[in-house]
Amino acid sequence: MKVSLNKKILDKNEECALRNSAFFTENNVLCLNMISSPGSGKTTILSETIRQLTGKAKIGVIEGDIKTDTDAQKIRAAGAAAVQIETKGACHLSAEQVTGAMTSIPAADLDIVFIENVGNLVCPSSFDLGEKFRLVVLSVPEGDDKPAKYPGTFAKADVLLVNKIDLHEHINFDIERVIKDAKTLKPAITIFRISAITGEGMDNWCNWLLEQIKKS
Amino acid sequence: MKVSLNKKILDKNEECALRNSAFFTENNVLCLNMISSPGSGKTTILSETIRQLTGKAKIGVIEGDIKTDTDAQKIRAAGAAAVQIETKGACHLSAEQVTGAMTSIPAADLDIVFIENVGNLVCPSSFDLGEKFRLVVLSVPEGDDKPAKYPGTFAKADVLLVNKIDLHEHINFDIERVIKDAKTLKPAITIFRISAITGEGMDNWCNWLLEQIKKS
Repeated sequence: MKVSLNKKILDKNEECALRNSAFFTENNVLCLNMISSPGSGKTTILSETIRQLTGKAKIGVIEGDIKTDTDAQKIRAAGAAAVQIETKGACHLSAEQVTGAMTSIPAADLDIVFIENVGNLVCPSSFDLGEKFRLVVLSVPEGDDKPAKYPGTFAKADVLLVNKIDLHEHINFDIERVIKDAKTLKPAITIFRISAITGEGMDNWCNWLLEQIKKS
Repeated sequence: MKVSLNKKILDKNEECALRNSAFFTENNVLCLNMISSPGSGKTTILSETIRQLTGKAKIGVIEGDIKTDTDAQKIRAAGAAAVQIETKGACHLSAEQVTGAMTSIPAADLDIVFIENVGNLVCPSSFDLGEKFRLVVLSVPEGDDKPAKYPGTFAKADVLLVNKIDLHEHINFDIERVIKDAKTLKPAITIFRISAITGEGMDNWCNWLLEQIKKS
């Protein structure tokens, strides 16, 4: 009984995700679903990405948090449209919540919609939101064993951002192990090494985004 | 219908947690349930705690991970009994899993049983495992906004370990904000500032543990 109920919920989410995906495709909007542990730097990455793409891409952000709307405030301060979903305890965003949030930003007129999921390296990976790319962020202080310990999340990632590389000199972190383990789980994964704080590597990541917009 | 099913599952977990709790009380075992984001340093803290309490306390560890048994191997290398639960995708440990795992370590003869939960700052907080103390770890690189953003987890914490304070000089992190927000959510919370890597603050934490053993 538990299984059939879960299946039903998943199907409802999948249906809604397909509708979101169709909306993004019809309107030439590139949608990325960003997943990571709490505190990996998702909001800082987005803020810096928005600043670097000013005048080059119209960006909107759907922010998911259990509580607070501080992330949406930071995104607006960086110059993009943002809407906050407070999940009130829920551990991931659903496709239906994303559909609802899109009415609060000019979604059809944007080049890129980022969905910043709830900080959680486990649960969000099971819920398709209609995105074109699944983006996983791993920050250096979290350790190089995370792809091995959370294989389900990394196996579904299209892009991996290894963030906070400015802290690498202070921390024992084997980036070659991360790349090897991530590529074993997802051979086609695209990996960028960045620091949203110092700006290192952000140009490669932003150029990749611009290339994807041209394709969409 | 969804609500009633959730209630039923929770009740089963609660019943099992009560049985675990009774077992720990009868056998004078101090049980702590350790919750944090992935990569906050739980296993390193436990390994260092085990080393510092060698000859002073008999310690066992129940390790929860989605995949791999590397954490249990590290605990055994530090000198304690350890058993690994691989949750195969599940985002938290259940009281029933803990009951099962206790048969693999000499639980009744130990002074302390640590349960290292799956790295996830959201879901494990809803599941009582029968512990005496709920222990939350927050590492400096995760940011000082985490109690505000994950209030449910911090409101249920008896002890907060602020770990990786050796990285504080490289990172913008307001520890006074963390303390204020955590105490607002849980006025009776006990807070330790530590670095499991450099050893800073570990003596206070270990002395607190020894005091709790005397009480149990």
